[in-house]
Amino acid sequence: MAQEPKEIVVEENLAELIGRRDVEGCSEWLSGHQGVDAVRLLARLSDGQREELLGMLAPAAAAEVIETIPEPQAVGAIEALDPGVAARILEVLPSDEQADLIGELPQEEAEAILDEFDVAEAAEVRFLASYEDDEAGGVMVTEFLSYPRSATVAEVLEDLGDNAEQYANYDIQYAYVTDEMGRLQGVLPLRSLLLSPRLRPLYKLMTPSVKRVLGTTSIDDLAALFRDSPFVGLPVVDDDEHLIGVVRRGRLEHALAEEADETYRATQGIVGGEELRSMPLLLRSRRRLAWLSVNVLLNVLAASVIASHQGTLEAVIALAVFLPIISDMSGCSGNQAVAVSMRELTLGVVRPGDVMRVLGKELSVGLINGLVLGLLVGGAALAWKSNAYLGLVVAAALALNTLIAVGLGGTIPLVLKKLDLDPALASGPILTTVTDMCGFALVLGFASAWLERLTVL
Amino acid sequence: MAQEPKEIVVEENLAELIGRRDVEGCSEWLSGHQGVDAVRLLARLSDGQREELLGMLAPAAAAEVIETIPEPQAVGAIEALDPGVAARILEVLPSDEQADLIGELPQEEAEAILDEFDVAEAAEVRFLASYEDDEAGGVMVTEFLSYPRSATVAEVLEDLGDNAEQYANYDIQYAYVTDEMGRLQGVLPLRSLLLSPRLRPLYKLMTPSVKRVLGTTSIDDLAALFRDSPFVGLPVVDDDEHLIGVVRRGRLEHALAEEADETYRATQGIVGGEELRSMPLLLRSRRRLAWLSVNVLLNVLAASVIASHQGTLEAVIALAVFLPIISDMSGCSGNQAVAVSMRELTLGVVRPGDVMRVLGKELSVGLINGLVLGLLVGGAALAWKSNAYLGLVVAAALALNTLIAVGLGGTIPLVLKKLDLDPALASGPILTTVTDMCGFALVLGFASAWLERLTVL
Repeated sequence: MAQEPKEIVVEENLAELIGRRDVEGCSEWLSGHQGVDAVRLLARLSDGQREELLGMLAPAAAAEVIETIPEPQAVGAIEALDPGVAARILEVLPSDEQADLIGELPQEEAEAILDEFDVAEAAEVRFLASYEDDEAGGVMVTEFLSYPRSATVAEVLEDLGDNAEQYANYDIQYAYVTDEMGRLQGVLPLRSLLLSPRLRPLYKLMTPSVKRVLGTTSIDDLAALFRDSPFVGLPVVDDDEHLIGVVRRGRLEHALAEEADETYRATQGIVGGEELRSMPLLLRSRRRLAWLSVNVLLNVLAASVIASHQGTLEAVIALAVFLPIISDMSGCSGNQAVAVSMRELTLGVVRPGDVMRVLGKELSVGLINGLVLGLLVGGAALAWKSNAYLGLVVAAALALNTLIAVGLGGTIPLVLKKLDLDPALASGPILTTVTDMCGFALVLGFASAWLERLTVL
Repeated sequence: MAQEPKEIVVEENLAELIGRRDVEGCSEWLSGHQGVDAVRLLARLSDGQREELLGMLAPAAAAEVIETIPEPQAVGAIEALDPGVAARILEVLPSDEQADLIGELPQEEAEAILDEFDVAEAAEVRFLASYEDDEAGGVMVTEFLSYPRSATVAEVLEDLGDNAEQYANYDIQYAYVTDEMGRLQGVLPLRSLLLSPRLRPLYKLMTPSVKRVLGTTSIDDLAALFRDSPFVGLPVVDDDEHLIGVVRRGRLEHALAEEADETYRATQGIVGGEELRSMPLLLRSRRRLAWLSVNVLLNVLAASVIASHQGTLEAVIALAVFLPIISDMSGCSGNQAVAVSMRELTLGVVRPGDVMRVLGKELSVGLINGLVLGLLVGGAALAWKSNAYLGLVVAAALALNTLIAVGLGGTIPLVLKKLDLDPALASGPILTTVTDMCGFALVLGFASAWLERLTVL
C-alpha cells in the first residue's frame, strides 16, 4: 500500500500529458514504463484519452501501444481513429497481428482502413483474414526469407545487408528455398549459410524434404507437430505447394493460450467476446445477460420437474433440502468429466469418434464415485431424520445421477466437436440441465414409490 | 468413420513391434507417424508397453517420444525406467524440459536419476528446478550463445562451426556478450555478426543496453514485456547481473497456455494434477473424490439454511421449486464476475489492491442484471401461481442475491491473490457456498415475513 500514492501520480501524469498534447512527454513516459505497469496504466485511460494518445504519436510508437493494451481496447481505439491514421499504425505491425485486429473490426471500418493500405498489402491482409483463428493460415506470418534455388550464398548475404531495415523484425533463423514457380523446395538454416563458400547455390546447401503444413491445418495438429520437434518455425503452403507463410512457435503457443483462456471464460459464462471493466456499463451488462437469460430458461425447464412432483415434496418436505445438493453435486461430477474430455481433445489423445471408449472409462469412475457420494449424502440424510428410507432415496438418486452425469459429461464434448459446435460453450449448460432434470426426477420418483415409509418423518 | 479400421491396424502394429522387441520396426513406425496421430497412438499404449518402447530405443529417439506424449505419461514412464536409462534420455532434452520433468518426479527417483547425470549438468538441473513454474527461472533455457566482449567476429564464427552439433537446438538469433565476470554487457544479433569485418571485437558491435529480467520475474510480467516488443528471447540475470539463461517467446507462451488450461481445469473440479483416462481407475476416482467430498461439505452447509427454514417451506411448498433456480442463477452471475477478474489479473489491468474499484464496477452491472433476472424469474413465479407476493419474494431475493454474487465474484479472486492463494481453485467454491446460503436465506426470510399473504396459494 505504501507505493500507491506514487503510482497515482504517474497515472495522472500520462493523462495530463495527453491533455496538454505533449507528444514528447508521452513518448518519454512510454519508454519509461514497461511490462505490467504500462499495461495497467494505459488500459485505465479513458477511451477518448487512448485515442488521442494514438493519434498524436508517431506510427511506430502508436503501434507499440496497440501491442501493449488488451486486444478489445486496441480494436476499439483503431475503430475510433481516422482510417488513414489507423492504416499508418497498422502497417508497422507484423502481418498476422494486422489481420487479427482488422478481422475484429466491423466490415465497413475494416474496408475503410484497407483502402488506405498499399494495394498489395491490403490484398495480403484480406488473404490472411480469410483464415480462421484456429488454422495455420490464421496464425502464420508472411514475413519470411525466401530465395530462388539458384541464388548463391553471396547473393543472400548481400540481400540481408541491403534490406536489413525491412528484415528488422523477421525471424531469420531459416531461409526458405523455392523453385521458379514459388513452390517450396527446401530450407536453409542461417547457420549453414554462414559457414558455406560464398559462390555455392542454395540448392546444394538446403535441406530438401522440409516439413510443411497447409493453411487449413488446425492449430491442435500444429501443436502436436511442434511438440514432436524443436522447430522454431514451420512453413505453410497452399494446395499447389507455394510457400505462403511461416508459423512461428511463439505465435502458435499464443493462439493455444488464447484458446484455453476462451474455454475457461465460456464455461464461466463470459460468452460473445472478452469483457474488460473499462468497457461501457450497458455493453457489459447486455453481454452477460445474453448468457444469463438462456440460463434462466434452462433452469425453469429443470425446475418444472420439481413442480410436477409437488405432492410428493409436500408430503416429505425434508427432500427440498436435498434437491439443491443433488443438483450441485451431479453438476460437479459431470464437469470433471467434461474437463478431462476437453483436455484429451486438446492433447489429441481422444478423437470425436471415441465416444464408446470414453463412456466405458467414465462409467467405471462414476460407479465408484456415485457409491461414495451416495453413502456420504445418504448417510447425512439418515443421521438428520433417523429415517433409513430417506437415506436410501437420497443415496440411490445421487449414485445413479452421478453415473448419468459423468457419462454425459465425458461424451457431450466429443459429440459437440463432431457436430462442429463449440464444446467449451455448450457442454456445461446441456450437462447441468439434463442432470438437474434427472436428479430431481430420481429423488422425487423414488420418494413417491416409498411415500408411506417416508411420511413418518 | 471410413478410415477407422486402417488406423486400428496401425495401432496394433506398434504394440506388436514392441512385443517382438523390434527396435528398427519401432523407429520406422515413429518416423512414419507425426502430429496428432502419433500422440493418440503413443498415448494409448499401456504403461508397460510405453516403458518397454522407451527402454529399447536410442536415447535421442526415446527423447522424441517423451516430448510427444502428454506430460503425466512422460513422468510416469521416466519414473518406471532404470535411472541410468532415464538419465541418458533426459540428457538429450533442453534444460528447461529436463527441469520440468525431474521436478514432477518423487524426490527419491529424481535424485537417483540426477546421480547418473554429469555432475555439472545435475547441478544445472537442480538450479533450474529451484525456480517456480511461473517465474522466468522456471521457463528459461540455459542453452544460449554467450561470448566475452573481447572476442572477435572470426572467433565466434569459428566456434559456431566447431560446435555446430552442440548448438543444433540452440536459438542462435542472438549472441549475448558478457564481461570477464560473466555479467551481461550486451546483445548481438547474428545478422550483424554476419555482415561485420571478421577481426572486429564484439563490444564494438553489440547493442549495449539490452533489456533483461531476473530469475524471479513472474511470467505475467514477462508476457507484458513480450507483448511490448518483438523479441524472440529475453536474457535472464541473477542479482549480480550474471547471465543465467534466456526465456524464449515460444516457451513463455507455452507456460501461459498451461496456466490457462490449469485455471479452466481447477474451476471444473479437476484438482491436484491433470487426469488422463489411461491412468489407473482408482487414481482417477480418488483424485476426483478428493474435490467432490469437499464439495459435499460445502453443499451440506448451504442446505442447512433450507433445513432451518423448514416451517416456512412447508407452508409455501412452491418455494422449493425456486431454491435451485436462485442457487444456480446466482452462481452463474458470480462466476461471470470471477472470470472477468481472472482475465484482468492475467492481463495486468487490475492488481490485487484494486478491490474497491472492481466492487464499484461489479455492483453497477449487478444492479441492472439483478433487476432483469428478478423480473424474469419473479414474473414466472407470478404467472405460475397467480400470487403477486410469491413473485415479489422470488424477484427481490434473486435481485439482491445477484448483487451479492457479482460483488463477491469480482473481488474474491483479488483477495485470494493478495493472500497468495490460487484464485482459480478457491474462487468458485467460496462463491457458490456463500451465494447459496444468502440466496436460500433471502427467499425463505422474505417468505416468512409475508407468510400469511403467501399461504393462500
